[in-house]
Amino acid sequence: SRHIDWSPLMAEKGGYKHFMLKEIFEQPRAVRDTIAGRLREEQGDVYLEDLKLTDEELRGIDRICIIACGTSWHAALVGKFLLEEHCRLPVEVDIASEFRYRNPVVNDRTLMVLISQSGETADTLAAMREGKARGAKNIAICNVVDSSIAREAAGVVYTHAGPEIGVASTKAFVTQLVALYLFTIRLGRALGTMDQAKGRAMIGELVKIPALIEKTLEMNDTVEKVARRYMNARDFLYLGRGICYPIALEGALKLKEISYIHAEGYPAGEMKHGPIALIDENMPVVVLVPKNSTYEKVLSNMEEVIARGGRVIAICSAGDDGVTRKAEETLEVPSDGEELATILLSVPLQLLAYHVAVLKGTDVDQPRNLAKSVTVE
Amino acid sequence: SRHIDWSPLMAEKGGYKHFMLKEIFEQPRAVRDTIAGRLREEQGDVYLEDLKLTDEELRGIDRICIIACGTSWHAALVGKFLLEEHCRLPVEVDIASEFRYRNPVVNDRTLMVLISQSGETADTLAAMREGKARGAKNIAICNVVDSSIAREAAGVVYTHAGPEIGVASTKAFVTQLVALYLFTIRLGRALGTMDQAKGRAMIGELVKIPALIEKTLEMNDTVEKVARRYMNARDFLYLGRGICYPIALEGALKLKEISYIHAEGYPAGEMKHGPIALIDENMPVVVLVPKNSTYEKVLSNMEEVIARGGRVIAICSAGDDGVTRKAEETLEVPSDGEELATILLSVPLQLLAYHVAVLKGTDVDQPRNLAKSVTVE
Repeated sequence: SRHIDWSPLMAEKGGYKHFMLKEIFEQPRAVRDTIAGRLREEQGDVYLEDLKLTDEELRGIDRICIIACGTSWHAALVGKFLLEEHCRLPVEVDIASEFRYRNPVVNDRTLMVLISQSGETADTLAAMREGKARGAKNIAICNVVDSSIAREAAGVVYTHAGPEIGVASTKAFVTQLVALYLFTIRLGRALGTMDQAKGRAMIGELVKIPALIEKTLEMNDTVEKVARRYMNARDFLYLGRGICYPIALEGALKLKEISYIHAEGYPAGEMKHGPIALIDENMPVVVLVPKNSTYEKVLSNMEEVIARGGRVIAICSAGDDGVTRKAEETLEVPSDGEELATILLSVPLQLLAYHVAVLKGTDVDQPRNLAKSVTVE
Repeated sequence: SRHIDWSPLMAEKGGYKHFMLKEIFEQPRAVRDTIAGRLREEQGDVYLEDLKLTDEELRGIDRICIIACGTSWHAALVGKFLLEEHCRLPVEVDIASEFRYRNPVVNDRTLMVLISQSGETADTLAAMREGKARGAKNIAICNVVDSSIAREAAGVVYTHAGPEIGVASTKAFVTQLVALYLFTIRLGRALGTMDQAKGRAMIGELVKIPALIEKTLEMNDTVEKVARRYMNARDFLYLGRGICYPIALEGALKLKEISYIHAEGYPAGEMKHGPIALIDENMPVVVLVPKNSTYEKVLSNMEEVIARGGRVIAICSAGDDGVTRKAEETLEVPSDGEELATILLSVPLQLLAYHVAVLKGTDVDQPRNLAKSVTVE
């Protein structure tokens, strides 16, 4: 098993005002470390050293349940898209505190994927044990080596984010997305639902991501200016569709956690079924509208918000003049791809929450009422 | 096929100030009509006249996808609990506008259940067609006879709520829960996962519900007083666990839709993973804490909210002094059962949203920006 040593030096702020900002800026490195040593570019496959499941065992799976809490649950929702698209197995995502008190339908052909940064999340650990008792296979995606969940799971895909000190998860989330992407390639190749060429293409996209995150981080000052204009809003909505919907949820959670502003994420297509009644000139609405397969649909949802007086902060693909002309604010990310764009779209949302919180003067790294790892039920 | 005629008289307000209030008070009748003629009490089974699927066809299903939007999506989430518990098939619930733009994993062993009051919801109709094209079986749960979804579906379980005029759905939601309960009995009996005695017991619980709703409606004046005390709050949280979590979501949506207050539903166990940072003395928190299998867990979540200064409005089982002592407000429903308690818990949440909206002077039956049936994408 591969270890990255965490030196005491890495746990200092290294010139940043807060651990959270340092950790946001560490994301290119965190992604590189999570990829390192795992790519089999020639074969269009990946090697996951602690996965422990053979190709034959992977082929015995007929359903996947991903279980997590909080930010990890948002990563799980992205994982559902990746796994269903490329591996063609039904994937259910559940919140650990919900799963463990259901009478869940899992059996020995179910693979449970447990996601927890700390590896100590009490509800996720209990959900894993519940699944095991029913015969389900399992793997964990954890950041902390030899944590309880990592130790009890049959296999582990470690994220190599390094220690995360800020209570609001940033680099751990992004490396969870990378781990799920890697596992998708591995499973797709094992099942034969992904051919070598597709595996190579997906790896090709992945290796570009660290440099694209670096590029995205250059908007830090711009995001700070946007934060200044909206910091006094009482409420925010975050909208996205498809694979961007969980990113909208995560953006809203960041703002909630550290700025105490009531922010809520919604699938953009559900706006007309209720939340659009909330829209008026006091409501900033963050819209994730990258150039992807639902671009036109989201653009139309964005126009509905504008027509009702909402103030749109659009996160879009670089050079999208159509969005820039319509939205009150535009933050552009350097990608118009679909799956890994989720990582790049996350960055401005992290920075927005960070700067709003700093401007409001909250305790960014240690927000009220929250703990880094929820080790109690 | 069985029709309930909708006379023009029924569509008038009948002495109520708003259609919404009239429809809330019609719920005992709506549930009776939805049950009428369908119970086979002796056999512990139900008869669904337009279901069209034989026992053999039902036994060929290995997975269920329930697809809906808005309020119907909340009913779907309750349906997942009922069907998994009693029929032991994996049930996935998806939002129609999300499902139709995925590359969904469905096949000829998948049963799609489409839920739409109007039967004209554009995204739900498109999702049904997408599933059909992939060979999935389907049934619809609709309120409007011969609507587009009802006509195109292979089978239908009609709710007999009668015409719903208020944009915020109330009686349609409650009858959707009844329809899902009836379908659960039918499927469980066909699969053999439910025996005759259990079927009889479930029917026995169901027939008590109309009178229990009548009893619950007696709290109308009390709820109006509670509404008066919280009407100026800017934000609300609604918490529930398990089968009560979707009811929390639905309660929050009602308040959003007609009072324009930013209300959000959350699984109570997820509080510690973010939203608890929002809690202060300005935040009313509606907690669904009936005497059921997660009672102790929710009680403990409620205490965490109180410890952080949140103002708790508890919806609990009649005579629960433990909750009454702790919460700022208590609204008691006459049931301590698990599954059908969801119907009784819905009533005070409907009344709370209604009275807050009336006190704020909004257009209750026709809230801003919303349409009764969303027939566009």
